[in-house]
Amino acid sequence: MKRTAFFISDGTGITAETLGNSLLTQFEGVQFEMVTLPYIDTLEKAHAVVGRVNDACERDGQKAIVFDTIVNPEIRETIAACQGFKIDVFESFLKPLEQELQLRSSYSVGKSHAINESSRYKERIASVNFALDNDDGGRVQQYSKADLILVGVSRCGKTPTCLYMALQFGIRAANYPITIEDLEVAGLPEVLMQHRDKLFGLTIDPFHLTAIRHERRPNSRYASLEQCEFEVREVERRLKQLGISSINTTHFSVEEIATRIMAEAGLTRRGV
Amino acid sequence: MKRTAFFISDGTGITAETLGNSLLTQFEGVQFEMVTLPYIDTLEKAHAVVGRVNDACERDGQKAIVFDTIVNPEIRETIAACQGFKIDVFESFLKPLEQELQLRSSYSVGKSHAINESSRYKERIASVNFALDNDDGGRVQQYSKADLILVGVSRCGKTPTCLYMALQFGIRAANYPITIEDLEVAGLPEVLMQHRDKLFGLTIDPFHLTAIRHERRPNSRYASLEQCEFEVREVERRLKQLGISSINTTHFSVEEIATRIMAEAGLTRRGV
Repeated sequence: MKRTAFFISDGTGITAETLGNSLLTQFEGVQFEMVTLPYIDTLEKAHAVVGRVNDACERDGQKAIVFDTIVNPEIRETIAACQGFKIDVFESFLKPLEQELQLRSSYSVGKSHAINESSRYKERIASVNFALDNDDGGRVQQYSKADLILVGVSRCGKTPTCLYMALQFGIRAANYPITIEDLEVAGLPEVLMQHRDKLFGLTIDPFHLTAIRHERRPNSRYASLEQCEFEVREVERRLKQLGISSINTTHFSVEEIATRIMAEAGLTRRGV
Repeated sequence: MKRTAFFISDGTGITAETLGNSLLTQFEGVQFEMVTLPYIDTLEKAHAVVGRVNDACERDGQKAIVFDTIVNPEIRETIAACQGFKIDVFESFLKPLEQELQLRSSYSVGKSHAINESSRYKERIASVNFALDNDDGGRVQQYSKADLILVGVSRCGKTPTCLYMALQFGIRAANYPITIEDLEVAGLPEVLMQHRDKLFGLTIDPFHLTAIRHERRPNSRYASLEQCEFEVREVERRLKQLGISSINTTHFSVEEIATRIMAEAGLTRRGV
């Protein structure tokens, strides 16, 4: 069974896409072709969208699913005339919220992503720079400014996790790869132990790690299962010994790793 | 007026937060204290959440707003007993979707972020590595593999945009900072012109740029308004001359910059 799903917005489309994706993945038997249509902010564009939706309905022989987060009432009405099955997010929730809050909503587009909205945005961009500056153990002088320092073997997922935390939550996360040289000495490097309460471990299944490393450096000792097993086992042992929390990244996405670490470390989004 | 808003999920909480944030920013007069509670995946945790919500209602003297994307029906019911004003996303939309699709939803948690969901996740992580490897003009040999090459003056927002596109959409975006040396020669560097159809310009208001650069290198010539004005004007002129599309980042967030570029360049998410 094939269906087309549209995520339509007069802003970035991120809300419609995020929500729609969450809901549609609940229906495993259906194959959805997903189409995001952002910045539908004129009646002309809205009419073109109606045409696209109707075409999809005809082609599939079934109603397309339409998730829409259009704020402008006129544009929303235009889109509502399409033949798709509509999940109108603002229509469903704004009215009840207006009643509960005893306020009219402002019906303005893209507020949640506006750059001048708050200090949040600045924190996020500053945190991206922080993550880049403090990636891969390159610099360690700024660890006192870090919210978090991720430690783990090379290629266990530290960098994407730090970047995601920065972009999404404005968290300043540094990361330090524990190298073979580090493992020749007991414990963890002194530069890390100075910030012991900021440390969080990432670990990974050695079979998964060897596959990832082989893509980077095929047939190297670095990528060998033996080496991966040794490093992972040794790092896990030390983290445990020192009582440092850790998470196994093997079956988690970067979103899950980031949000689980934040929950466990008691971190919340930076900037009000 | 102050209200507490809760974003509650048995997964990462990203959907509840994204949707809730979009809706609440429509009410400008209200100051919301936002609390995200992810991984509420046991009845015990659910009961604790009910306590927190009720406490907030009592403290504020008003109902807290509760956005919930709990998949598990039992946990959802437990949370529904709280005194907050509930926006139950799955309750509102899953039933109608089940009817339209003639299918029961699977009621399984975190599907949309599951690492083994699809090729999408691999593309995203590979794209993050690509963005890092090809950041800041450091390497140019991989430009043939890029979906997009962002060009613009130093500090106009290229790097965060590339990283966001990678993490969110799996787009392989390289970036090249146009330096003063580049501006001594006419046109754009040959290494860029070889991939002319992948180029996209970022530009920025010189006043904004000088402020950003002053934070990085205070009182430098690099940060001076005169220098910023010269670089921006010169780069804008060349982009226009060559017919290369560009976007002014001054008043846009990284989400907006990324999604607008993708829309304009006709790029869609990588990985099915």
